[in-house]
Amino acid sequence: MLGLGQMGSALAEAFLRAGHRVTVWNRSPAKAEPLVAQGAQAASSAVEAQRSAPVVVACVLDYPALTEILDPELPGILVNLTSGSPEQAREMAGRGGRYVDGGIMTTPPGIGDQRSMILYSGDQDALAEASGLLSALAEPINLGADPGLAALYDTALLGIMWSTLTGWLHATALVTADGATAEHFTPLATRWLGPVAGFISSYAPQVDSGSYPGSDATLDVHLATLDHLVHASEVRKVDAALPRLLHDYARRAVESGHGADGWARIIELLRAA
Amino acid sequence: MLGLGQMGSALAEAFLRAGHRVTVWNRSPAKAEPLVAQGAQAASSAVEAQRSAPVVVACVLDYPALTEILDPELPGILVNLTSGSPEQAREMAGRGGRYVDGGIMTTPPGIGDQRSMILYSGDQDALAEASGLLSALAEPINLGADPGLAALYDTALLGIMWSTLTGWLHATALVTADGATAEHFTPLATRWLGPVAGFISSYAPQVDSGSYPGSDATLDVHLATLDHLVHASEVRKVDAALPRLLHDYARRAVESGHGADGWARIIELLRAA
Repeated sequence: MLGLGQMGSALAEAFLRAGHRVTVWNRSPAKAEPLVAQGAQAASSAVEAQRSAPVVVACVLDYPALTEILDPELPGILVNLTSGSPEQAREMAGRGGRYVDGGIMTTPPGIGDQRSMILYSGDQDALAEASGLLSALAEPINLGADPGLAALYDTALLGIMWSTLTGWLHATALVTADGATAEHFTPLATRWLGPVAGFISSYAPQVDSGSYPGSDATLDVHLATLDHLVHASEVRKVDAALPRLLHDYARRAVESGHGADGWARIIELLRAA
Repeated sequence: MLGLGQMGSALAEAFLRAGHRVTVWNRSPAKAEPLVAQGAQAASSAVEAQRSAPVVVACVLDYPALTEILDPELPGILVNLTSGSPEQAREMAGRGGRYVDGGIMTTPPGIGDQRSMILYSGDQDALAEASGLLSALAEPINLGADPGLAALYDTALLGIMWSTLTGWLHATALVTADGATAEHFTPLATRWLGPVAGFISSYAPQVDSGSYPGSDATLDVHLATLDHLVHASEVRKVDAALPRLLHDYARRAVESGHGADGWARIIELLRAA
């Protein structure tokens, strides 16, 4: 295990809890101490750590930090859980060796919980060999041979998270302006994500087929109700940048003659940028 | 039942299925025919319909359309499920009479399904009297005496829906640019909404207390990973307006000295607009 920040330490602990032999290394060696107390071996150098095990898991600050310490003759499999871009992951895979890239879709306390997901992509034989080990961390989700796909899915899923969190904060700013509390509103908001997930599932085949029938609600209807959202924001002096952006997408799609289509049609505007 | 568009017809059908006596009215009378075939009475005027029953449910185009047909001496309870703003709902309640406002959080096929929600607010005695009837439509959720709150929660929840749908479409534009399909990506996206709902639930008390500890992830970390999202969009020529807006919120919060706080801090920027 290379890198013992909050996340790296959580990964090493999950390996230890699952009964694996673990060698750890961190730039500042003090971080290794609590793990050694739990049964890990401390390597005296990054190269020593990399030559100690058939699978090397890395979770360091960023890709340049990993490149600095990487053993060019690394004998085993490298599973790189360092945050980075798809382009960085593909470049790292291009250096040769048995390379698996990963994206961790949880915070450190979620490591070791099978409801958490870690996305993997890259060398499929290497991933098959390491998957028993990796299942100690979270459910391993294999996205296939393209080493960039784990990082791409990771950043895409985080984008959904920030959009949803910010939509919820905006909604909460609206209702609290009229005296409601976040704790009253939020259980309805999280329950509402269930039907929203249903809409998303029904729109996925529309996106793949390029046909967006507005059978549940048309963009014409969305645009009219988005007017209410922008207006409700303005009346309450709540920042309307997010609803205005959403309104603008709907308006552009309607003005291009797609008012009878559903919301999934908006992807055509996103792709055409 | 006043108004027999797609939604009004679904409401009338659910009342009939539940065994209630239903009188229906629509501006263009032909819409009443399928309901009469299912056992409804057709009223010959809007006023006749309103005098026929202890509870009048309205679902017409908009509030002005309702005002036009409303009986000023309406004897019963008016449950208004017409889409509108909180301000319109409060004004309608101010006309006097026993008034309940509602927001339907489903499409017509979801009417009659207890997993669907309809939000109500207004005259609490009237709502208690009508709730047996209204439970035929979906789970009735009572938001209290403020007649504007159902419409406000409705528009706020729709705001979350559009934010999440658009975040998902943006994410899907990214992954499909690299060869993935929406149908491969989407099950992970909808599963990911589970943890996101968990983050939201943990942030609600933070919003109410005005304290936003970055214990799961700090705005400093969010800002760095938002850079990846903006970059991944630009490289793939995917519209980056949504990630740039999210990045801008994070940047402003970090620049104001809140880099160690969590994402919920963003609500202070939304409220300060």
